[in-house]
Amino acid sequence: MIWYKDNDADIAVSTRIRLARNVEGTPFPNALSDKGEVTEKIKNAVLASNSTLAGEFEFINLDQKSKTERSALAEEHLISPQMISGKGQSVMISRDKTMSIMLMEEDHIRLQIIQSGLALSEAYETANRVDDVIEESLAYAFDEEFGYLTACPTNAGTGMRASVMLHLPALRLTDNISRIISSVNAMGLTVRGLYGEGTKAYGDMYQISNQVTLGLSEREIINKLKSVVDQIIDLEKKAREGLMKANADYLKDKLGRSYGILKYAFSMSSKEARELISDVILGQNLGILKKGKMSALECMVKASPAEMGGQKPEERDLKRAQFLKENI
Amino acid sequence: MIWYKDNDADIAVSTRIRLARNVEGTPFPNALSDKGEVTEKIKNAVLASNSTLAGEFEFINLDQKSKTERSALAEEHLISPQMISGKGQSVMISRDKTMSIMLMEEDHIRLQIIQSGLALSEAYETANRVDDVIEESLAYAFDEEFGYLTACPTNAGTGMRASVMLHLPALRLTDNISRIISSVNAMGLTVRGLYGEGTKAYGDMYQISNQVTLGLSEREIINKLKSVVDQIIDLEKKAREGLMKANADYLKDKLGRSYGILKYAFSMSSKEARELISDVILGQNLGILKKGKMSALECMVKASPAEMGGQKPEERDLKRAQFLKENI
Repeated sequence: MIWYKDNDADIAVSTRIRLARNVEGTPFPNALSDKGEVTEKIKNAVLASNSTLAGEFEFINLDQKSKTERSALAEEHLISPQMISGKGQSVMISRDKTMSIMLMEEDHIRLQIIQSGLALSEAYETANRVDDVIEESLAYAFDEEFGYLTACPTNAGTGMRASVMLHLPALRLTDNISRIISSVNAMGLTVRGLYGEGTKAYGDMYQISNQVTLGLSEREIINKLKSVVDQIIDLEKKAREGLMKANADYLKDKLGRSYGILKYAFSMSSKEARELISDVILGQNLGILKKGKMSALECMVKASPAEMGGQKPEERDLKRAQFLKENI
Repeated sequence: MIWYKDNDADIAVSTRIRLARNVEGTPFPNALSDKGEVTEKIKNAVLASNSTLAGEFEFINLDQKSKTERSALAEEHLISPQMISGKGQSVMISRDKTMSIMLMEEDHIRLQIIQSGLALSEAYETANRVDDVIEESLAYAFDEEFGYLTACPTNAGTGMRASVMLHLPALRLTDNISRIISSVNAMGLTVRGLYGEGTKAYGDMYQISNQVTLGLSEREIINKLKSVVDQIIDLEKKAREGLMKANADYLKDKLGRSYGILKYAFSMSSKEARELISDVILGQNLGILKKGKMSALECMVKASPAEMGGQKPEERDLKRAQFLKENI
């Protein structure tokens, strides 16, 4: 199931595991003039394999997709933002959209598992299984000392990036978010605003991920991330309880107004939509607001500029307001 | 019918005629130690009369009413704001609430007719009829040269103040309101913001009235006022058409958002309520917004601090939001 479907986004929104892999004896994509041959090799390793993977994936040549279609895939986190305007790239996406194998991004293979909620171990096991199937037909570039070799040395070693997306509106409302970002960074993890950067994240969505890929095992990386994420979730829960205890009327008013604007505005920018939907997600999780036709998280994803189609911004803003009115 | 009931407030909201009268040979109220005797005389002239008036009016001794009850009467424009905290004052109100006879305000008698819409001639004729009935039993203080004598000389002559309440949101949105107030003032008429003063009027409600009561006949005063009011109504109509032509999307968005906030806020000040309800009145009259359970104008009157009861302001704000959510 795609990560944002029927997902009530109660703090831990989604989990992602990404493995970077390269085919032995072949230059990295940026130094590779003919990307077709190695693409074909990897495609066959997945689709012609005798494992269960064969029937699960669909191959998409991104050169044959419009910029809008590619942007929509990026909004769903099925390709990386760089792949919106890339060349010679492709992706294999599983039917349930939890797995995507990007080809000819920075590395030959970027295998990604994305699931709703906090599910680091499950996602890692799935990634491992797919990785093993590919490795049955392909030799990876691997070094005894450095582990998996990657185009950028920061990815070498495990080649793994594990990340959890967290919805942290109460930590923002209580002015704790900057402090928390600093201490997470100090622990060697990275915090990224999902829309907008750092403390200016629109929609209060933050992605916490490991920075180091070398010198720790996959299991160690996941355990460290899990422990920090659990602490942040706990802080967000406490901040919500505190707000409800001290400022329930203020909160009901603020979140209700955001819902009212989403219900009755006639035009809306994507930045405003994300901010208001963040309030609605919080309100629904606190039991202040009722759930709509579509999950509020899905509304946030679908209200992106790419999903709203390629018209003029003003037309998109009208279309977005209409979409949100009907679905939130 | 009370002026704000089922009134869609399409620019001309209400019309008011007020006549100031004093009983011959009796000091004005501010110099009168025993107000009881003259009050009784006037009360009898109305209630004991053999005319149709007798059954129409109810007598209210304001000394027996709480400050909140008196404030609510003032919000309905059935007594003047000064009477909220006065002493020895009373009022006779007609069952349909279109007529009120205030006793021992600045003058012995302040007879007021208030109707919805623009109805200067009708209101004046009604006032005249009631005035005649009272005069059958009472001699008024009257001077051949100065006309009706009043406590304040600015009311002498006809003793009449005629006024029309106009809802002028488009003239505010197009930044024309200050200019119009200045030219109306220059024509010898007075413009008052109904809630807040002048150009800072909350709710875009303006009362246009005659300044001069001496030297012109009642008919002349009414004709002059009518002609200026007709012009302002025309300007507001043109401003609305202009906005709909040039900025329909902006208008639909702005008015829709105001409606959404009224529908989903949990707490609301009276100032904000008036501003948002003004948008809703405009939206309903432009066909952009649907009508609610109660007319938006009635919601504006009923959302006043007095109508919301005498609790703490924060409690009133919660009660007001609840009331508006249900009725707008």
